[in-house]
Amino acid sequence: MLYSRYFIPTVKETPSDAEVVSHQLMLRAGMIRKLAAGIYNYLPLGLRSIRKFENIVREEMDRAGAIELLMPSVQPAELWQESGRWSFYGKELLRFKDRKEGEFCMGPTHEEVITDMIRREIKSYRQMPINFYQIQTKFRDEIRPRFGLMRGREFIMKDAYSFDVDSSAADESYDRMYQAYIRIFERCGLNFRAVEADSGTIGGSFSHEFMVLADSGEDGIASCDSCRYAANVEKAEARPLPSVPAGELLPLEKIATPDMKTIADVAAFLKLTADRTVKTLVYASGSGEFVMALLRGDHELNEIKLKNSLGWDEIEMATEEEILRITGSPIGFLGPLGLKEKVTVIADLVVEGMANVAMGANEKDMHFINANPGRDFSVERFADIRMVVAGDACPRCQEGKLEMWRGIEVGHVFKLGTKYSTALNATYLDADGKEQVIFMGCYGIGIGRTVAAAIEQNHDENGIIFPLPLAPFHCSVVALNAKDGDVMAAAGEIYSKLVQLGVETLFDDRDERPGVKFKDNDLIGIPLRIVVGSKGLAEGKVEVKIRKTGEVLLLPVEEGIARIKQLVDAALV
Amino acid sequence: MLYSRYFIPTVKETPSDAEVVSHQLMLRAGMIRKLAAGIYNYLPLGLRSIRKFENIVREEMDRAGAIELLMPSVQPAELWQESGRWSFYGKELLRFKDRKEGEFCMGPTHEEVITDMIRREIKSYRQMPINFYQIQTKFRDEIRPRFGLMRGREFIMKDAYSFDVDSSAADESYDRMYQAYIRIFERCGLNFRAVEADSGTIGGSFSHEFMVLADSGEDGIASCDSCRYAANVEKAEARPLPSVPAGELLPLEKIATPDMKTIADVAAFLKLTADRTVKTLVYASGSGEFVMALLRGDHELNEIKLKNSLGWDEIEMATEEEILRITGSPIGFLGPLGLKEKVTVIADLVVEGMANVAMGANEKDMHFINANPGRDFSVERFADIRMVVAGDACPRCQEGKLEMWRGIEVGHVFKLGTKYSTALNATYLDADGKEQVIFMGCYGIGIGRTVAAAIEQNHDENGIIFPLPLAPFHCSVVALNAKDGDVMAAAGEIYSKLVQLGVETLFDDRDERPGVKFKDNDLIGIPLRIVVGSKGLAEGKVEVKIRKTGEVLLLPVEEGIARIKQLVDAALV
Repeated sequence: MLYSRYFIPTVKETPSDAEVVSHQLMLRAGMIRKLAAGIYNYLPLGLRSIRKFENIVREEMDRAGAIELLMPSVQPAELWQESGRWSFYGKELLRFKDRKEGEFCMGPTHEEVITDMIRREIKSYRQMPINFYQIQTKFRDEIRPRFGLMRGREFIMKDAYSFDVDSSAADESYDRMYQAYIRIFERCGLNFRAVEADSGTIGGSFSHEFMVLADSGEDGIASCDSCRYAANVEKAEARPLPSVPAGELLPLEKIATPDMKTIADVAAFLKLTADRTVKTLVYASGSGEFVMALLRGDHELNEIKLKNSLGWDEIEMATEEEILRITGSPIGFLGPLGLKEKVTVIADLVVEGMANVAMGANEKDMHFINANPGRDFSVERFADIRMVVAGDACPRCQEGKLEMWRGIEVGHVFKLGTKYSTALNATYLDADGKEQVIFMGCYGIGIGRTVAAAIEQNHDENGIIFPLPLAPFHCSVVALNAKDGDVMAAAGEIYSKLVQLGVETLFDDRDERPGVKFKDNDLIGIPLRIVVGSKGLAEGKVEVKIRKTGEVLLLPVEEGIARIKQLVDAALV
Repeated sequence: MLYSRYFIPTVKETPSDAEVVSHQLMLRAGMIRKLAAGIYNYLPLGLRSIRKFENIVREEMDRAGAIELLMPSVQPAELWQESGRWSFYGKELLRFKDRKEGEFCMGPTHEEVITDMIRREIKSYRQMPINFYQIQTKFRDEIRPRFGLMRGREFIMKDAYSFDVDSSAADESYDRMYQAYIRIFERCGLNFRAVEADSGTIGGSFSHEFMVLADSGEDGIASCDSCRYAANVEKAEARPLPSVPAGELLPLEKIATPDMKTIADVAAFLKLTADRTVKTLVYASGSGEFVMALLRGDHELNEIKLKNSLGWDEIEMATEEEILRITGSPIGFLGPLGLKEKVTVIADLVVEGMANVAMGANEKDMHFINANPGRDFSVERFADIRMVVAGDACPRCQEGKLEMWRGIEVGHVFKLGTKYSTALNATYLDADGKEQVIFMGCYGIGIGRTVAAAIEQNHDENGIIFPLPLAPFHCSVVALNAKDGDVMAAAGEIYSKLVQLGVETLFDDRDERPGVKFKDNDLIGIPLRIVVGSKGLAEGKVEVKIRKTGEVLLLPVEEGIARIKQLVDAALV
């Protein structure tokens, strides 16, 4: 590709509305342009990277025996009503009416559509296992689209759906996809982890997320420093901590704590450490139910664990008004004692082992000290509802401690079980002619998000450093002086030879200063570069530069070309 | 690909809701399944054909210097308001609001989005000519979606947009695309014509349609039997016919024609041929304007010509009520004499040369005879507003006559001029630093529609006969008896060799009767077939069958393979 005939509108300034590095660099490198909130044009260079990744995904899906098809973006409401998600899925599901007042939505995912197809076409156990995938444009009406392709509203996704005769066959399909995902992200040259995850609104029995590690990652991940346990913090299990030796249980006392509304305030005022206090939170189900959750003062609530432990579909903090009604107290002084309304009280496992704690008295400016669970207040259930923290004991092995890091979710595999097949009545006849429900799995990869995550993980102050398998071009040939006929001829010849060798090459033939060319080539992250100048040519040599390491080799022309070819082949496993 | 591990749900019965052959065969061959009106799942086999065609299109676009990008489906209303199409585009534009009440639409086309991108990125004449294309999913909320992929609501399209410094440069871009389109449809092995066309709602100065010829085509096409003139009947020009020798102008007479409401009735009653009558139609602009159109009785009105000649944006037949108000007469007796309201009267060119005609008297059950234009009724304008018919003189050359045939529109190239660049203020600085408006062209190809059109043109009573470049597989290897180990081994080996040679092969390894296999292979239209049976193998031979001609060759195994490879290479130019 000739740079002069291509379209790479690079930008010097960092765009002010781009918060994360990948978003900034994709804008600056001319890979994407915003059309509306969370909706982007993929410019030529961006599309090339997207296609590179799509092809890796496609190859590994095919290799794993999945079959490609393509389902529509626009989906009829009927199917979503049948699965129950029409009412369950919130405002992220973009709904609209067509000209005949028929109700439709833009597909954020395709469980309903594929299950509908399957229930019509799959009749016999002989037709399974079968696994379909597509690479398709989805829409989720995110409330806060941001970070460029990282959390867009319209985005490209690979989604796959497996269909099996029973749970253990479904496990095998799940494992095949899990392994395919490992290969996909390995082939991309990314540093990633597969972690246990919450199944969220897709539902289902278990799931793993594939996380590209990056400091800017939105997701917290906990992993054991000893065994292979790794989980999203949303899901990471906490072991009960050893009980604090109770000592003598002191008498409960109510004391004034004027304006002490935070745990920090109260602890400082009472000359206690935060881990001697209990904090109280009130949550609502959105359908009229409330719960009071108790945690050790220095711990954070894990809303997802709390929601799952209650079996609720949704969870949100109770409003000040609701809290006042239930406890009779303003926020800052809440506790489980002396409630105005009956409400379920759940305490974190850690609270069970605490003694002589400070907690709110459900009265403005008042706290209890020396409160003791069981003696002074009752708890309906102790459950693991807190966020794990670094140093927590590993929930799997005996020795390890948890480490915390950040990741970007780029893939997700779910074992769905029979959630959708039961709802949509997708059944088959087994070998005995008996009707059975089909077992399903579903498997997603964010295409644009993976490219963005690759950039989050691989960049420096000069721009993107693409892993070669995702780079829009493998190599650039930079002619130092476009006005020098000899240089241009030599560079053109090198370009042709590289192309003949199957090296995807961008020939920077622009009549620009070398500095401008180097800056642009660094910014757009082409992994390999051959610089052709009159000085080098006089000795029959060119400069080969490796973007990632900064290494520069002065090599005879043919050797330079061979070196590039060798580096490309080595990176494309 | 092993047939047994693939997914080709063929159907014996012709689906009752499929009116056209391509729709029937695509359903029966397991290529597509309907999800909702005009919205289809592309099953694996269908998707393969779609991808084949996409790749041909992509290669030819790249070869023509167009640059691939990808724009979103969801587009903000603002851009459409800026171009003026938000109000102009009817209900085909699917509109909706997002969760924040922002107005959006599903893109039926991308002039607004690309022009918006261009006005931000193109500043100088040096950046042009430039041409962008995408292969993308569009949505048009058709009032009557039908014929499968032929007139769907959600569909895949290749659209390209060229940007030039002036009109003559834009002509060059147009011509490059025109030539690329010729190559694309030639490479597909389709019988097609490029015809002059009306520019429709896209607007612009001139355009050509690419039509795949097929009896079932929705579009009428007129072409000269002598010169290269070809046009959509919507656009095809009529030459004024030689005047009928007037002879004596007879006195106007009003006579009773009880219940004679059609031209045929009136002509028979008056013992005239229909070409001695004038028919009168009343049309409305949708915004309060009306026109009366006069035609020779045996001619048909061309609504598009009438609309264009009036400069209206829309046109529709006036209602019975409106007609009664304007003429004072019920339908069937209309004419230009004695109107109740002032209305523009336009007559077809042919009417100018007529004399002593019969026409309605604007009175129930009454007609005039011997009416003469000029003498008895006045016409504000004579214009070409009729449909051409077979045998009409060619509007271009002196000798030719028009022939009529049917075609399916699969591609369309438009010279847009400055319609969108003016509306969206897309300008550049010329060599003198002066601001100029960019000239545009736009170029579409219906991807799914082309595959469907290929089937309309190429099928027989047994199923599809794919042109090899569009076939989901080039060749199938049919093992006659899947239980015979020798046959399966030999067939497997042939399959492997074909795959190694780059022949895309479907290995029909199913344990089914030969009849079932042949029927399925005929139905899905694989162009080439190797049949492996124990009888042939005993002599070291296989059967090579060519789907299109029915030709069967009994050849030694290696020769059979070589023959297939040769046929594939010959078809893939």
